[in-house]
Amino acid sequence: MQPIDLLIEPRWLVPVEPHGVVLENHAVAIDGDRIVAVLQVAEARAHYAPRERVELAEHALIPGLINAHTHNPMTLMRGLADDLPLMRWLQEHIWPVEARFMGSEFVRDGVELGVAEMLRGGTTCCNENYFFPDVQAATYRQLGFRAMVGLPIIEFPTAWAQTRDEYFEKGLAVHDEFKGEALLGTSLAPHAPYTVADASFERIRILSDQLDLPVHLHLHETAQEVEDSKREHGARPFARMQALGLVNDHLIAVHMTQLTDAEIAACAEAGVSVVHCAESNLKLASGFCPTEKLRRAGVNLALGTDGAASNNDLDMVGEMRSAALLAKAVANDASALDAASALRAATLNGAKALGWNERIGSIEPGKQADLTAIRLDDIETQPLYHVISQLVYAAGRHQVSDVWIAGQRKLRDRVLVDLDVGELRGKTQRWRERIVT
Amino acid sequence: MQPIDLLIEPRWLVPVEPHGVVLENHAVAIDGDRIVAVLQVAEARAHYAPRERVELAEHALIPGLINAHTHNPMTLMRGLADDLPLMRWLQEHIWPVEARFMGSEFVRDGVELGVAEMLRGGTTCCNENYFFPDVQAATYRQLGFRAMVGLPIIEFPTAWAQTRDEYFEKGLAVHDEFKGEALLGTSLAPHAPYTVADASFERIRILSDQLDLPVHLHLHETAQEVEDSKREHGARPFARMQALGLVNDHLIAVHMTQLTDAEIAACAEAGVSVVHCAESNLKLASGFCPTEKLRRAGVNLALGTDGAASNNDLDMVGEMRSAALLAKAVANDASALDAASALRAATLNGAKALGWNERIGSIEPGKQADLTAIRLDDIETQPLYHVISQLVYAAGRHQVSDVWIAGQRKLRDRVLVDLDVGELRGKTQRWRERIVT
Repeated sequence: MQPIDLLIEPRWLVPVEPHGVVLENHAVAIDGDRIVAVLQVAEARAHYAPRERVELAEHALIPGLINAHTHNPMTLMRGLADDLPLMRWLQEHIWPVEARFMGSEFVRDGVELGVAEMLRGGTTCCNENYFFPDVQAATYRQLGFRAMVGLPIIEFPTAWAQTRDEYFEKGLAVHDEFKGEALLGTSLAPHAPYTVADASFERIRILSDQLDLPVHLHLHETAQEVEDSKREHGARPFARMQALGLVNDHLIAVHMTQLTDAEIAACAEAGVSVVHCAESNLKLASGFCPTEKLRRAGVNLALGTDGAASNNDLDMVGEMRSAALLAKAVANDASALDAASALRAATLNGAKALGWNERIGSIEPGKQADLTAIRLDDIETQPLYHVISQLVYAAGRHQVSDVWIAGQRKLRDRVLVDLDVGELRGKTQRWRERIVT
Repeated sequence: MQPIDLLIEPRWLVPVEPHGVVLENHAVAIDGDRIVAVLQVAEARAHYAPRERVELAEHALIPGLINAHTHNPMTLMRGLADDLPLMRWLQEHIWPVEARFMGSEFVRDGVELGVAEMLRGGTTCCNENYFFPDVQAATYRQLGFRAMVGLPIIEFPTAWAQTRDEYFEKGLAVHDEFKGEALLGTSLAPHAPYTVADASFERIRILSDQLDLPVHLHLHETAQEVEDSKREHGARPFARMQALGLVNDHLIAVHMTQLTDAEIAACAEAGVSVVHCAESNLKLASGFCPTEKLRRAGVNLALGTDGAASNNDLDMVGEMRSAALLAKAVANDASALDAASALRAATLNGAKALGWNERIGSIEPGKQADLTAIRLDDIETQPLYHVISQLVYAAGRHQVSDVWIAGQRKLRDRVLVDLDVGELRGKTQRWRERIVT
């Protein structure tokens, strides 16, 4: 009998790879931070002596969800201002609050709140994009949460950095400081084509090549952005990024609501990942990302919530559902972005966008044990004909019962293992007091 | 001190009328099935001697949600077939199952499952549209759930009725049988312009006038429906309904994804209610209802889930959110269908569609005590800047804690008062076994 740390025996196992498969009577054997085997329960019990055995009699076990685009510190601004045009929302509400409060404490507390919400919703990894990446990285490390932390670059001064050089210097220092961390990674995060100059993009391109870092960029979020770029640069933003050498397999292009067929083909050709933020795009009236066209063209399509200030949650279960529903209406085809493809977008494709698809995103031997269990015995998910359909179209994030990251239990029967919800609520309410007064 | 049955003291009270208001330190006084007063807590305690007092320290109290279009027996087919074009979905999956199983037992059990899900999601009233309205009505009555039951009319035989005359006769018998019931009402429910002949619509129009009954009709669900009608009848379905005299304030027009500005103006002029089923329209790729245009034109806009076979839930909290998000992208305006308007659509406007706006849909003295309490202390709804925004954009239906219908508690701290969830789950699972074999 081989000693291992953990054996999980779910009612249904959805490994994501192979695609669309639902296994019954199967177990996941975990040792340390890794999955060592996916095998029949009888075989597992005969072969392994686990330190802990977890039976999940009414649950589906899926790979931890990957939120491929978020600004978690902004969770502290959830619902601060809604139902407003983008520019009024930014200029009259979000930016003034950021100008007054953004700093280490704000970022740490916001990330903590975000992690609590993500874990309770089955998310085990996020692609973070905000200021103070040092504080973010330290907070994710402390909480044992997997994250790719963006190194922000923008052409105007903030509390994080004053000048272009300072953005690069401070960002690279963060990269160096956290580079050995098991759960962390860094990306280069130029804000958007309309807030970053060519000179910065050129440096980003070189750094991305040298350090093998993803480039995490808001791109083609609105029609206005495209029009402004044509006027200012004589080119659509995508064409400008092509000219700057940034359209390659390091690019994580977020939003992409405005795309020609040629741009879609170029994304597929170059290995660009597109992150679709269905709910944010709807809420800010940004436009409709042609997700099914992208998928059919072979583009790696991942999903993200965007920040909770424009969503207003970090719910990847809901985001899968919204993306799957919206894709059908946008493609005028009820078979577009089927349930298994939506689940894949929210897991393995997110991993691929980060360059981490050898490490996470599916339940396969050798991968990290990032796992999410979802109860399906609530009457809201009954009767149950197809497990993956139920996960995508009927389940709610509150049905997530247990979560592991790198083999460590982070949520146990809906209770956060490392975070005190009462304390967190108190902290959050104090931020609210400060922000509204 | 005036004796009353119940005094509810929520942290926040959202009466819906007046529009957009959130009251603090207010209570709702209830006697029998009615709201007798909405007043300050101190005043309420000084004036009333309630048999029961309920403090809801972390909750918002709202009018019970009204699902203005659903086919609850179809809840037994939740997730049976997804990601399919409409006609394959109907012809290969839904209709064959209905042909084999639809009958009294199926309808009773489906309604029971639907009621359990609706109550757990804060819904207190539905506008039902399916076969066997006698069984539906008896089941809603037995469970103390408020419902308007459609009397189905369709030009082909089903287990419910064989001929046009039989549909009318059986429907009218149901109307007569249940007409005195406090929580029930009936509507005339011709299926759709493409499945009902002019001769039937003419009888429906006369009956609607004589009996003062709403007409609950799927209308302009898809572009195909409009094209087919032009070919077959030489007119768009809406124009055909106008010619038949059905475009009036009895009409509950469901879906309406294809509308000209003239049709919108005609709806406003005639007092038509439009029921928007955002998630079903997305999932079946039916098209986009121009909800903001309708609202601005003064059309009464209500919300519905449609059946759980094409949604796949009966979640009106989620439907409010989906409708509010989608409206913005469709109108290309981030201020479209703001949170307060979405909540109104899911409550008072639903009541108005049914002709019940003097009875339900807002928390006002004299109205029925149909009430829903939603906890807002979960970290997913923190920090809390604006209560109505949080209800619409961040809260999930699992945060619904307590529900009353006509002053009777139906959900108590998430436990169903009149339904055994275990028994229900067993029944549901037996239906699944029968349907898949």
